[in-house]
Amino acid sequence: MHQAGLSLRGGSSTSDCFPLSHRNTDECGSETSSGPRKHEPTFLSRMRSIVSFYICYLLCLGLGLACVVCVCLWNSQWRGGFAWDGSALQFNWHPVLMVTGLVVLYGNGAVLYRVPLTWGQNKLPWKLLHATLMFLALILSIVGLCAVFGFHNKKNIPNLYSLHSWIGIAAVALFAIQWVGGLAGFLLPCSPISIRALLKPVHVWMGGSILWLSIAACISGINEKLFFVLTGTQAYANLPSEALLGNSLGLLIVAFGFVVLMILSNHKWQRPDSSPEVLAYTPLLEEENE
Amino acid sequence: MHQAGLSLRGGSSTSDCFPLSHRNTDECGSETSSGPRKHEPTFLSRMRSIVSFYICYLLCLGLGLACVVCVCLWNSQWRGGFAWDGSALQFNWHPVLMVTGLVVLYGNGAVLYRVPLTWGQNKLPWKLLHATLMFLALILSIVGLCAVFGFHNKKNIPNLYSLHSWIGIAAVALFAIQWVGGLAGFLLPCSPISIRALLKPVHVWMGGSILWLSIAACISGINEKLFFVLTGTQAYANLPSEALLGNSLGLLIVAFGFVVLMILSNHKWQRPDSSPEVLAYTPLLEEENE
Repeated sequence: MHQAGLSLRGGSSTSDCFPLSHRNTDECGSETSSGPRKHEPTFLSRMRSIVSFYICYLLCLGLGLACVVCVCLWNSQWRGGFAWDGSALQFNWHPVLMVTGLVVLYGNGAVLYRVPLTWGQNKLPWKLLHATLMFLALILSIVGLCAVFGFHNKKNIPNLYSLHSWIGIAAVALFAIQWVGGLAGFLLPCSPISIRALLKPVHVWMGGSILWLSIAACISGINEKLFFVLTGTQAYANLPSEALLGNSLGLLIVAFGFVVLMILSNHKWQRPDSSPEVLAYTPLLEEENE
Repeated sequence: MHQAGLSLRGGSSTSDCFPLSHRNTDECGSETSSGPRKHEPTFLSRMRSIVSFYICYLLCLGLGLACVVCVCLWNSQWRGGFAWDGSALQFNWHPVLMVTGLVVLYGNGAVLYRVPLTWGQNKLPWKLLHATLMFLALILSIVGLCAVFGFHNKKNIPNLYSLHSWIGIAAVALFAIQWVGGLAGFLLPCSPISIRALLKPVHVWMGGSILWLSIAACISGINEKLFFVLTGTQAYANLPSEALLGNSLGLLIVAFGFVVLMILSNHKWQRPDSSPEVLAYTPLLEEENE
């Protein structure tokens, strides 16, 4: 397998991008043997890169778990719990399933390839796990939509009129298209490499965009719900405990999005490409001439 | 000046990344002379890259203009126009200034370095223009916040209780920190290169994150405002013309964000780095082993 990365910065090396390998490359990508003096900083910078990844990954897992706990707590303790009978208790599944599926599971599925543990292995099982996590996220999101549609229909409330609903339905529709496109383009053996090459940057760009669109839908939904339910002495403007919990849930979702997009944008944590024509890299958005 | 890019795809070349140059490089970055056969597809792929950039850039400018026109139209024709007297007419400056500053001007400032016209030139004037656009965007955002605080204070409405306000104030605060950090790190001559190298990926990641946070704040704000003002026969659920205009504004903002983040994520449109140690690139998130 040919190594794929060259570091821009003097202090780091190819191995920053490929922690499972102990080979080094020169600037043109050919393998070289290096002495103990060269090995030591390479090993250290590799370890630094892995440790910093796992700290961010733990933060990502922790924030995701905090989002799920917070949205479940809000709807079980403050909103009366769950049912599937067209009542307000059915509606309560909506925020829980959208936050869990469309944000937390989706975000974790997106960063899967960045886990260094997966790099030295055959990619196919990880592709299947990525597709499975995204499929579960999509199913949870669709069930979350069914929960709110069922509640609206039972109460004769119109569907899909608010900006929140337009943004949310757009996020789920784009996610479904993205999943089907990903399956057809990257998992079906009959898809030609030229199509994969064309589809890849679109899949990556859409993937990140769907995440922030989902977060915008969640923020507007939580904000709308708190204005709806907090009235009288418990008015939203008085910041009762439910308002603080809902606002904190919003901040946790935003923090989760920041960490996921930081992991995705850090070129050091990209899965190295074994394609022989890929010899080296320039970091994303490298613009400085200094 | 040393060329900075190597293409992954067989059909394109270094010049995809550097449309103003007519030199070619071999895979190790050294300059080579190439005959007419090699020149022709290189020139064509370079032109394709430039043309596709300018199509996206025009789309970005057009969507940004549509957002500004739409938010001005909404607040002037449907909400009664503008004043600075603590009335609802003062509030109307809030959506106009936040959409114009925090989203449209900010997004245009972010993609400035991607315009191929700027690549062959000294970077300093473009840095100054980037900083100036961002400063104007920040000032408009702060005046937009003053508009809503003044209105709230005059009407004895509490400030900063809703999730929308928490997200919005976080976006403006992070933007202010980002601007000061950018000025200190990239414009002051005394800032050491090691600091710039550390700051750069953080500046890039935060830059994109602030944009989608701002968009989430705008979406939740438009949604909240439409629920507040559309009541009775003109209820939001009946989708009167103002609701359609407000929802369309939300969709235009999202479309603008998609195009800006597509331009930022396309490695072919990055400003080439003239740093001699940067010899070649691997596209962002290149993960395929096929």
